[in-house]
Amino acid sequence: MTKYVYMFKEGNQTMRNLLGGKGANLGEMTSLGLPVPPGFTVTTEACIDYYKRGKEIAPEIIEQIYQALAETEKLGGKRFGDVTNPFLVSVRSGARASMPGMMDTILNLGLTDESVQGLAKLTGKTRFAYDSYRRFIQMFSDVVMGIDKENYEELLEEMKEKKNVELDTELDDDDMVELVRQFKEKYLELKGEPFPQDPREQLIEAITAVFRSWDNPRANYYRRMNHIPYDWGTAVNVQAMVFGNMGEDSGTGVAFTRNPSDGTKELYGEYLFNAQGEDVVAGIRTPKPIAELKNDNPRLYNEFVELSSTLEKHYRDMQDMEFTIEKGKLYMLQTRNGKRTAQAALKIAIDLVEEGVLSKKEAVLKVEPSQLDALLHPQFDSEALKNASLIATGLNASPGAATGRAVFNAERARELKDQDGIPVILVRQETSPEDIEGMAVANGILTSRGGMTSHAAVVARGMGKCCVAGAGSVKVSEAKKQFVVDGKVFNEGDWISLDGSTGKVYGERIQTVDATVSGDFEKLMNWADEFRALGVRANADNERDATVAYNYGAQGIGLCRTEHMFFEGDRISAVREMIVANTLEEREKALAKLLPMQRDDFISLYKAMKGHPVTVRYLDPPLHEFLPTEESDIVALAKEMGLKADVLRQTIDGLHESNPMLGHRGVRLSVTYPEIARMQTQAVIEAAIAVTKDGLKVVPEIMIPLVGEVKELKYIKDVVVETADAIIKESGIELPYHVGTMIEVPRAALLADEVAKEAEFFSFGTNDLTQMTFGFSRDDAGTFLPEYYEKKIFENDPFAHVDEKGVGKLMKMATELGQKTRPDIKLGICGEHGGDPKSVEFCHDIGLTYVSCSPFRVPIARLAAAHANIKKPRN
Amino acid sequence: MTKYVYMFKEGNQTMRNLLGGKGANLGEMTSLGLPVPPGFTVTTEACIDYYKRGKEIAPEIIEQIYQALAETEKLGGKRFGDVTNPFLVSVRSGARASMPGMMDTILNLGLTDESVQGLAKLTGKTRFAYDSYRRFIQMFSDVVMGIDKENYEELLEEMKEKKNVELDTELDDDDMVELVRQFKEKYLELKGEPFPQDPREQLIEAITAVFRSWDNPRANYYRRMNHIPYDWGTAVNVQAMVFGNMGEDSGTGVAFTRNPSDGTKELYGEYLFNAQGEDVVAGIRTPKPIAELKNDNPRLYNEFVELSSTLEKHYRDMQDMEFTIEKGKLYMLQTRNGKRTAQAALKIAIDLVEEGVLSKKEAVLKVEPSQLDALLHPQFDSEALKNASLIATGLNASPGAATGRAVFNAERARELKDQDGIPVILVRQETSPEDIEGMAVANGILTSRGGMTSHAAVVARGMGKCCVAGAGSVKVSEAKKQFVVDGKVFNEGDWISLDGSTGKVYGERIQTVDATVSGDFEKLMNWADEFRALGVRANADNERDATVAYNYGAQGIGLCRTEHMFFEGDRISAVREMIVANTLEEREKALAKLLPMQRDDFISLYKAMKGHPVTVRYLDPPLHEFLPTEESDIVALAKEMGLKADVLRQTIDGLHESNPMLGHRGVRLSVTYPEIARMQTQAVIEAAIAVTKDGLKVVPEIMIPLVGEVKELKYIKDVVVETADAIIKESGIELPYHVGTMIEVPRAALLADEVAKEAEFFSFGTNDLTQMTFGFSRDDAGTFLPEYYEKKIFENDPFAHVDEKGVGKLMKMATELGQKTRPDIKLGICGEHGGDPKSVEFCHDIGLTYVSCSPFRVPIARLAAAHANIKKPRN
Repeated sequence: MTKYVYMFKEGNQTMRNLLGGKGANLGEMTSLGLPVPPGFTVTTEACIDYYKRGKEIAPEIIEQIYQALAETEKLGGKRFGDVTNPFLVSVRSGARASMPGMMDTILNLGLTDESVQGLAKLTGKTRFAYDSYRRFIQMFSDVVMGIDKENYEELLEEMKEKKNVELDTELDDDDMVELVRQFKEKYLELKGEPFPQDPREQLIEAITAVFRSWDNPRANYYRRMNHIPYDWGTAVNVQAMVFGNMGEDSGTGVAFTRNPSDGTKELYGEYLFNAQGEDVVAGIRTPKPIAELKNDNPRLYNEFVELSSTLEKHYRDMQDMEFTIEKGKLYMLQTRNGKRTAQAALKIAIDLVEEGVLSKKEAVLKVEPSQLDALLHPQFDSEALKNASLIATGLNASPGAATGRAVFNAERARELKDQDGIPVILVRQETSPEDIEGMAVANGILTSRGGMTSHAAVVARGMGKCCVAGAGSVKVSEAKKQFVVDGKVFNEGDWISLDGSTGKVYGERIQTVDATVSGDFEKLMNWADEFRALGVRANADNERDATVAYNYGAQGIGLCRTEHMFFEGDRISAVREMIVANTLEEREKALAKLLPMQRDDFISLYKAMKGHPVTVRYLDPPLHEFLPTEESDIVALAKEMGLKADVLRQTIDGLHESNPMLGHRGVRLSVTYPEIARMQTQAVIEAAIAVTKDGLKVVPEIMIPLVGEVKELKYIKDVVVETADAIIKESGIELPYHVGTMIEVPRAALLADEVAKEAEFFSFGTNDLTQMTFGFSRDDAGTFLPEYYEKKIFENDPFAHVDEKGVGKLMKMATELGQKTRPDIKLGICGEHGGDPKSVEFCHDIGLTYVSCSPFRVPIARLAAAHANIKKPRN
Repeated sequence: MTKYVYMFKEGNQTMRNLLGGKGANLGEMTSLGLPVPPGFTVTTEACIDYYKRGKEIAPEIIEQIYQALAETEKLGGKRFGDVTNPFLVSVRSGARASMPGMMDTILNLGLTDESVQGLAKLTGKTRFAYDSYRRFIQMFSDVVMGIDKENYEELLEEMKEKKNVELDTELDDDDMVELVRQFKEKYLELKGEPFPQDPREQLIEAITAVFRSWDNPRANYYRRMNHIPYDWGTAVNVQAMVFGNMGEDSGTGVAFTRNPSDGTKELYGEYLFNAQGEDVVAGIRTPKPIAELKNDNPRLYNEFVELSSTLEKHYRDMQDMEFTIEKGKLYMLQTRNGKRTAQAALKIAIDLVEEGVLSKKEAVLKVEPSQLDALLHPQFDSEALKNASLIATGLNASPGAATGRAVFNAERARELKDQDGIPVILVRQETSPEDIEGMAVANGILTSRGGMTSHAAVVARGMGKCCVAGAGSVKVSEAKKQFVVDGKVFNEGDWISLDGSTGKVYGERIQTVDATVSGDFEKLMNWADEFRALGVRANADNERDATVAYNYGAQGIGLCRTEHMFFEGDRISAVREMIVANTLEEREKALAKLLPMQRDDFISLYKAMKGHPVTVRYLDPPLHEFLPTEESDIVALAKEMGLKADVLRQTIDGLHESNPMLGHRGVRLSVTYPEIARMQTQAVIEAAIAVTKDGLKVVPEIMIPLVGEVKELKYIKDVVVETADAIIKESGIELPYHVGTMIEVPRAALLADEVAKEAEFFSFGTNDLTQMTFGFSRDDAGTFLPEYYEKKIFENDPFAHVDEKGVGKLMKMATELGQKTRPDIKLGICGEHGGDPKSVEFCHDIGLTYVSCSPFRVPIARLAAAHANIKKPRN
């Protein structure tokens, strides 16, 4: 028979998967001989079984619970329902991974009309006993029975009014007894049956409720955000209650072994005598700093300090502990590795190494890669944030905090910012390449449409700029220069604030504090570099981004999107001239104008990267993206180009595509217009020769996008090589260069052995690969993906984390096939996934050479790569 | 050393790959002892080598050619350049597969200033000799040197004018001698060097020219249409010339062993005494029917009859022969299996079985599946077609011939056809579901945009209606009700004609002849059925199509696209009501209106299929396809629905997608609106119960489209099963049914083992699978695919024939993974490829259970399936 219930003394910290984090730690503390109130854990497997049976606890599991309960009673020397010495328990969730506040908890379970009298007698506190009973009825109703607690709060308010008092604490014994009577009456009225008087019945209902809460929307959302699989299930911990409110020799508190904000080595926390946890939370009384316990009760303080130290040493990490003192006896209710700020995480990791507790390798694992974001971007002042008015929530598309005046187009953003120095937030339905300059001057970007890989999101991450994307409830009217959210109108110039790390939008100005990178950061990143096997490059299209990337430790550029260079100033005119050209000659003339600009771009990129490799992706987007769509813009452009508006409109109509994502773009453009590839090759190679002459060594990598068939790569590679070799020969300089391809079309992955005959390197373009493998576009998926999460069809956004099963299978195939043809093939990834720690780990595991990500995610990728290699070292 | 040149006597018909068809047959005839002028074949491998070397013939191959030439001279007893008995040769291409007229031929090679005198002396015909020389110079200039033959035609015209004659034949000896002089002068002028006087140099140049012609645009196009790989190369046959124009005891002719039009067993052909092939082609003299040879020269006739009979028996197929009589001696210049009409193919195959020459299995192989098209669709009267004016060429999207008056919208099509019985051709830029009724009444459909799987093409093939799609040069203005092609305007009511089998568009009325299906057809199809392993079903959405399919032998419906049922009459109103519904209740109300109509549809489908399985695919296209896009239509619809136009426009805008192909469609609709799946299930099951009560056995198959993840299939399957089981239980009837899925998203193929846990059958949706695997949409690929063909990146349209390497790899994976989970899983294909013989063969090879195709392609698929199983029998 499967064992579904474990006494605490049977558990230990290695049993986390079965007992959950809390259960495993309670077991560990019990085994260590620490003072832990007795109890038991119902396993995660019981939860899985519960769901498998259609939400029912199997009779054999109930049987095991009852047995454990009996043993717990024996251990505590108390009995459920005992009138003289009643036994009460808490029932708490505890999953493998911490999900604070996401699931339900029930305290004081076991109180009945009889045992409440025992509690009153035992403690000599009628008011306390009935107050506990009242709270239990309310909590049980709410959590277990789904009865709104408002029903009870009303009765409490009426009583206070009647007695003409303001605080609960001012109610006396009789008032509480009366309230309990009223609460039970209300329960009967709403449920149609009396409040259960059998503690065992209460217990099974409560455990069921905790299992059920695994599936509440809050928990589902949290899991999705934190990649916690639905099928893990939660354990349930049933523990004897101890009371911190039995007089001045009782109390309760929480403490950290180190300061969780800055990492300082000091006991940090607070406590309150004669109180239960709830009193602290309710804010009725103000708790005292833990340091004061030293004066209040030196014995207890010393005992707690010793316990803390034991726990930190045992767990080799900063601990977050809950304790209760019942009549002078200290009980540990919980310990866990404490949450901490990024700054504290760095300091603690480094201090623990210096204290000889951790090795460098272990220290590197103590800092979560995703935490680094907070160090690299401005954040809201935490005090200022407290009272801020949240108006909407979108996708946390690019981290950091921003505050500024709302503007609705790029031009106005520039005017306000450049001329008057006014901070602005650019608000758009969705952004397009024409908005780039506006995005560059804005403090943040807010869009109402688009997902994690929409234009706004990708560009903002590249710029290291805060962005909240796809905030659907924000109705943007660019024409009226306003947005409406929940009926409230925001006009141009109104202050708003964005938190790109959480996706929150606030309707006011909020102070921000700048990013700060300490010496600890450098130290830890250097350690991380010692342990990683995966290279880290950056996606950068200009000198500014490349410099940021270089400073953050990028070992090269993995993706330079040349089209981003095509939108600025005079360039866009030349690009448009090229597009409307009717003959090869006209097109070449326009391209000739672009050549010197592209060459200069590459020179500055090479210089910024100081000799590290630079991968240049050739023109990728469909040409219509470079042309206007609005009638007035078309007329203006036609005039500028000396064309009839009709003719220009015809060109634009001719470029229209039903599914531009699947249209005339990428390598297909080069096949149709090899002269574009020729110009880009000339620019790449001439720039490399120029910097080589200046003494910088550079190996350009030319990357052809959207290849699905080796012959199309071959066709363009021939053009590239012919052009490049002629220039190199003429220069008289030795210049190695490589030609490779993106793997972003499923067919290229399937036939990677053939593609590798021509490609000297692969770079996985996982944005497109994800779109084509799933058959949905990132721009449109927003309309149905929420239903997919709700219905648990998807647990993760495949555009945020590589879909390892499907897309990952193609990546593995391509990797193996590519290596079969060309054993030393260089393998990278340059999709947005390259900066996602979970995806970085996957890339390490399948053997890629490097990942490439936005400059501001480079440190995250470096740390994630170190984690991956520490967990699963490469041979 | 590789042997690159074979004497005819060294070859035989098994060496087709190396010697080409013509070379192998010349070898075979020589071996049989038939009178074949001596010669040799330069192999296809030599051609491949030629391209590999950058278009150069290797010295060793030239050496082998010279050796074979010497041997040929010996065999013929003549010598190159001999002034008394000159040796002349023909140089002809000959690929593995016949490519008639696609490559170049040169006759009379070996003529020089000296040998022409020899020829004149030998034949006693100066005029003939110099005329031959003149033609050779012209042909050599054109084919070998790329000099336009107009240059020479001009000189000929001048000469005729000067001599005041009309026909070439009226020029005398001296005129011809003079013309040769002028031709050589012209050659010198244009080439800068004299006409080559060394026959060996002429020969190598000519062989080079034939190799080169393998790569001409005509040949490339022909290969693409006929799936002949580019890398096969062509062989070249060099053969001693014999002359049919040496007097009345000489002649030339062509003949078939059976009538190629209707298959009658009779010698069929024509001949001409004292003539060369060219004279026949030029139409200067009218050849006589072969039967007359019996009177003209009984000896030769009998000899030829005997040879013909020998050849037919030897090859066990109807032969197409060329012969020449030189001074009373009969020479066979070529034999091959003769091209024949579909009708003749059937008759010959069946007759040969009855004559005991072929087995049934062999007879089945003698009819090409694609030929059957001609039997199933109307064709142009071949006489009427001869002088028709071709105005444009598009894609041969749906076969058959049609003639009618041009109309530009569905409504007008109905008016003219229904009210006045006037035959119409519907001309549109592209069609949409709203055009269906217009398409149904039209004789044919012409579109200027869209590919082989565009809406027009798919629907037309389903209706068995002629369609020419994507005729880019036809500029359609639906507003002006006209189209313009090459500056010529066609207005509503003007007669036009379409050939959907060739893609040709004619600017006039052309008589058509109806399709005729003979008893031979039935007989051969029955034989085919005996040999095939693959099932054949049809794609049909209504009773009419289903009945056609059933009559053509479909063994079930493999794809019923339910959305096609949603456009007719009242239904579209209910569908639109459903789309604009704001609440579940409103949506269910609208669905309730659709239910009885859907149920009736299914009842009639089940009845039409008489108990064969019917696969119903649930709603697939994005909802916006059911709503209008034109402002005026929106206003009208809003009025009809009692909505504000603004509100409706907002709904329509809200449904807008950047890439609808990758948007909210297929199973995604069902996940968002499970009530649609519920209604469709109710209709499918209730209809099945109704016909079951009427005594018909039916097993409905419910097919969920666009699945990419097993959990989304499971989600909907649960809805389907719950709904279906409740209805079945209530009915008290036993009704088996199956739930399966399309495999059309790459991810589903990659994870088919998981998908098969829920799917009871797979049906490959190769249209979408091709789009997503290649990453291009069929609607947009038209802009760049032509360049891909031209640059030989693609040799085939992947939407017409399954891309076996890429898409096929996914299909194979999915097949194997699916069978791993569910060994008896039913595997079908319902993409457009299901009716393409080449793709059917592939489906057989990878082990599918059935193919499903348009009703009119069912016989083609049956025959193709038989071919596949005969070639590679299934265990």
